[in-house]
Amino acid sequence: MDTENQQKPGFVENVWTWVKGVANKIVNAVFCAQKEAKKLAKDDPRRVVHSFKVGLAIILVSLLYYFDDPIYDGFGVSAMWAVMTVVVIFEFSVGATLGKGVNRGIASLLGGALGVGAHRLASFTGNKVEPIFLGLSVFLMAAVSSFLRFHPLLKARYDYGLMIFILTVSLICVSGYRDDEVLDIAYIRLFTVLIGGAASVFICVVIRPVWAGEDLHNLTAANIEKLAIFFQGTTSFLSSLQHNLEFFKSFDESNEEKKASLDVYKSVLNSKANEESLANSAKWEPRHGKFRYRQPWDQYLKVGAATRECAYRIEALSGYLINSEMQMPAEIREKIQEPCMKISKECSCALVELSAAIKKMTQATRADLHVSKAKAVSKNLKSLLKTGLSPDTDLVDIIPAATVASLLLEIVSCTAQIADSVHELALLSKYKCPDDARPSPIGNEKILPRTSSIEVSRNFVITVV
Amino acid sequence: MDTENQQKPGFVENVWTWVKGVANKIVNAVFCAQKEAKKLAKDDPRRVVHSFKVGLAIILVSLLYYFDDPIYDGFGVSAMWAVMTVVVIFEFSVGATLGKGVNRGIASLLGGALGVGAHRLASFTGNKVEPIFLGLSVFLMAAVSSFLRFHPLLKARYDYGLMIFILTVSLICVSGYRDDEVLDIAYIRLFTVLIGGAASVFICVVIRPVWAGEDLHNLTAANIEKLAIFFQGTTSFLSSLQHNLEFFKSFDESNEEKKASLDVYKSVLNSKANEESLANSAKWEPRHGKFRYRQPWDQYLKVGAATRECAYRIEALSGYLINSEMQMPAEIREKIQEPCMKISKECSCALVELSAAIKKMTQATRADLHVSKAKAVSKNLKSLLKTGLSPDTDLVDIIPAATVASLLLEIVSCTAQIADSVHELALLSKYKCPDDARPSPIGNEKILPRTSSIEVSRNFVITVV
Repeated sequence: MDTENQQKPGFVENVWTWVKGVANKIVNAVFCAQKEAKKLAKDDPRRVVHSFKVGLAIILVSLLYYFDDPIYDGFGVSAMWAVMTVVVIFEFSVGATLGKGVNRGIASLLGGALGVGAHRLASFTGNKVEPIFLGLSVFLMAAVSSFLRFHPLLKARYDYGLMIFILTVSLICVSGYRDDEVLDIAYIRLFTVLIGGAASVFICVVIRPVWAGEDLHNLTAANIEKLAIFFQGTTSFLSSLQHNLEFFKSFDESNEEKKASLDVYKSVLNSKANEESLANSAKWEPRHGKFRYRQPWDQYLKVGAATRECAYRIEALSGYLINSEMQMPAEIREKIQEPCMKISKECSCALVELSAAIKKMTQATRADLHVSKAKAVSKNLKSLLKTGLSPDTDLVDIIPAATVASLLLEIVSCTAQIADSVHELALLSKYKCPDDARPSPIGNEKILPRTSSIEVSRNFVITVV
Repeated sequence: MDTENQQKPGFVENVWTWVKGVANKIVNAVFCAQKEAKKLAKDDPRRVVHSFKVGLAIILVSLLYYFDDPIYDGFGVSAMWAVMTVVVIFEFSVGATLGKGVNRGIASLLGGALGVGAHRLASFTGNKVEPIFLGLSVFLMAAVSSFLRFHPLLKARYDYGLMIFILTVSLICVSGYRDDEVLDIAYIRLFTVLIGGAASVFICVVIRPVWAGEDLHNLTAANIEKLAIFFQGTTSFLSSLQHNLEFFKSFDESNEEKKASLDVYKSVLNSKANEESLANSAKWEPRHGKFRYRQPWDQYLKVGAATRECAYRIEALSGYLINSEMQMPAEIREKIQEPCMKISKECSCALVELSAAIKKMTQATRADLHVSKAKAVSKNLKSLLKTGLSPDTDLVDIIPAATVASLLLEIVSCTAQIADSVHELALLSKYKCPDDARPSPIGNEKILPRTSSIEVSRNFVITVV
């Protein structure tokens, strides 16, 4: 009895502890989920709107069932195709929804036509041959379409359509319907798919539309800005440089926030897939807002590629600065500190100009000025390394300075490439001249053609030196 | 009459030319399509097999309609869900098919249960409130699920399941069926989905299965090999270096094929999305062939990230070599040519070892040897730049050599990182020791722990110097 009495509270206590533990875990999980949901919504409030839009579109289409008994009798089970279409094609952006809708519509039409055709042909054969004939044609069409889905161009834009084509052909061919039913079914299915598609596109466009083109436009500008933020961080750090050129090591200890600003560019490195999917969606979108009918979306991809090239160089530079245990004598450090800062600053200014120009859809008239200044300063830095240092400097002390200078020079030419691709974008999109375009201090700056940035830079070498 | 006679042959000729032109275009298009199809099939012959597998699976499932009249009567229109499931979930790799199948199965089960539950609840309310109650619950569930699809973790693995959940709930709730029908329909739908899923997975696994895990494994090894190819190209080029260090410029004119081998690494830069999707699929795959049950797929992603880091540095190096108009005096060139070649060769050897080790699933015992050799040579190169050059060398002549040396040093440490991540992969996957592991020439090389590569490198400095 004693032992039982001793065990019982122990058992009850154990159960109670377990229940409390589980309850705690559940409360924690709910709390965590709530926090994550809040973060998701805060990161992009359009996500909440999108969720409501999906619900609304489904309800709207399902009205086909409820309030229209004659239509319901007419559609029968096929009315569910409208609901299914909405669920499957409703995407975040208008372009993606439209693309999927058009794909589904055309694929249903083609698939339905071929399915009905195969069915009609099969009916001319004997009763025994008919299923074999139908099976073979489904097999053939499914195999060929599946193979076509591997083609990169078709995959990018018509992957969903090819899938729906296989689906429609299979469903119509093998459904076992009688020949006279098939045409009706194909017709009703196509009609309900069109209703579902139209409802999705309508709600997607009317209520707070999300344009993939606009997202791509903003992403391109934001990515360029991220590189600018890196250079701003480098500049402000260089100006407070005290002991040696281990840029980020001392940074690491002193200021976490500033270090984070130097890591912002990392997301640019892997932006390709996102940009391509946005561009694919954007190509489906009609003229809207500030975008002309034929927006050069491929040029955005080129700007993105140039931006990534620059980000690769920045990655190499920042990796070099973090990893290498370079020590630099005060004499050299003081001498290269100013030109390095100037180059960082000019690159940053140029990139900010380019990013702002894309955002405002104006020509980046002053970006070239900064690029040429950066080029001029890097030439100065080179000649400084050649002549400006005392002859008894140890060669090995120059290596870090030389490497940083070379990489910065590389980055300057990458920045020039970004500028060129943005200028081409401005040309193709017919961006306006900015309202606040002041006459350039040198005068002939603005009328120089795009390709002559080297000449401009030469002009500047004379000016600066 | 005369003018008409003169015009008529002209018109006929025009039509003939037009017809010939169109016919030519069609023939050309067919020829092109044939060529592209051949290329697609040649690039990866598994694509052809996959297409046949899709056709076969559809035919297999559609037998439900043809040869089993009692079952056909039982399933009715619901049999089409089996066909639809096959078309929608049949993916290239086993993992992707299994993932989509499991997603679809569980989502159909959950969605069906919740749909039936909502239907039952609604039947307790009045006739007028019922559609409003059902509509509201569909709206709520659709909105919440749509929102959840934005969560990165859910998006990666359960995006398709969440979509099917919305689909099933909507179809069951708003279908307008009577309460007693709904349970039957939900049951039959789930059953047919399971049949379709099982057929897809069966055919996917039985006929020439494509394992996403194996693809990821091979891709990881191939990407490391691509970097090795770059260094092999650099080495062979450096050994034939005659005039200056404009590596790729003279290359450009002399040997297109070799230049192409130097561009092979570029595909590594953007491999992240592909690797992540393969890893996501691989996580669904069961034990098979040479892979244990819990293969560390995330470690493959880490190896991939290290490989990309190295590729970024290579991009910076190759960009520097292409763009900079550096001239190097013969004296310096001759001196740095050999160490640069050695570093390239050692890096290449190390990467080849690592790639081969992954391929064979053995430990890369000899890769560290090459990495330490490369580290030793790069230290030698540094000290050569410090002391080995004549004191009257122009500083500016050293800049290119210093930059190349610094970047190569960076690349060596990246290679060491790749080696470390591959060693961790070998540890986690329990790779065997290679059969041909010869005792190391230095003896203590192999028993040193992973982290002591710096010590090893010091050993080597002594050996080499």
